[in-house]
Amino acid sequence: MKSLDAPFFALSDPTRRAILSRLARGEATVMELAEPFEMTQPAVSRHLKVLESAGLIARRVDGAKRPCRLEQKGMQAIDQWLAMMRKALARNYDRLDDVLANMQRKTKGEQQ
Amino acid sequence: MKSLDAPFFALSDPTRRAILSRLARGEATVMELAEPFEMTQPAVSRHLKVLESAGLIARRVDGAKRPCRLEQKGMQAIDQWLAMMRKALARNYDRLDDVLANMQRKTKGEQQ
Repeated sequence: MKSLDAPFFALSDPTRRAILSRLARGEATVMELAEPFEMTQPAVSRHLKVLESAGLIARRVDGAKRPCRLEQKGMQAIDQWLAMMRKALARNYDRLDDVLANMQRKTKGEQQ
Repeated sequence: MKSLDAPFFALSDPTRRAILSRLARGEATVMELAEPFEMTQPAVSRHLKVLESAGLIARRVDGAKRPCRLEQKGMQAIDQWLAMMRKALARNYDRLDDVLANMQRKTKGEQQ
């Protein structure tokens, strides 16, 4: 599995998360991204590089433009890790339920 | 909403993710966490501090021990952000479907 270090690090910045939220609504150029964030294009480009090398966005060439789009695979890798955590937690709660049920059975047995 | 910067940054380290996976299976002390990772206890403690201040784990006092457990609220905040992204992506695909359907209708209209 590709390391999750870079994707999680990329997500630790509010501007990068906002850029991803924007791209979830559809492709955008650096210029289109720079405008709402009131950032210079070089500043946006630096954030895009972090997101691209983390596998969270991809860019294509369209003449002189290089529109960005969300790379779903990167988001899915993060989703998978969280799903694994949820599963482990659920199993843990199931075990706790078993322990509690056993305790209740024992208590009832003692009462009888 | 509490910032997601710290939680995402905390998750960008493989040891911290491994510690969380371990805690998803149940509470553990620093000593119990240090063993499988072949790390010193101070090194584990430093990671735990990062996870605790990010709201991903909580610790309780049990005599001289301070067992750690997963703080579900922190994980849920991350889940919520990802869910929002998935929703935006789905809406985006729905719009694409509409555009494609309209294009097909127009093409059919032209053919008739």
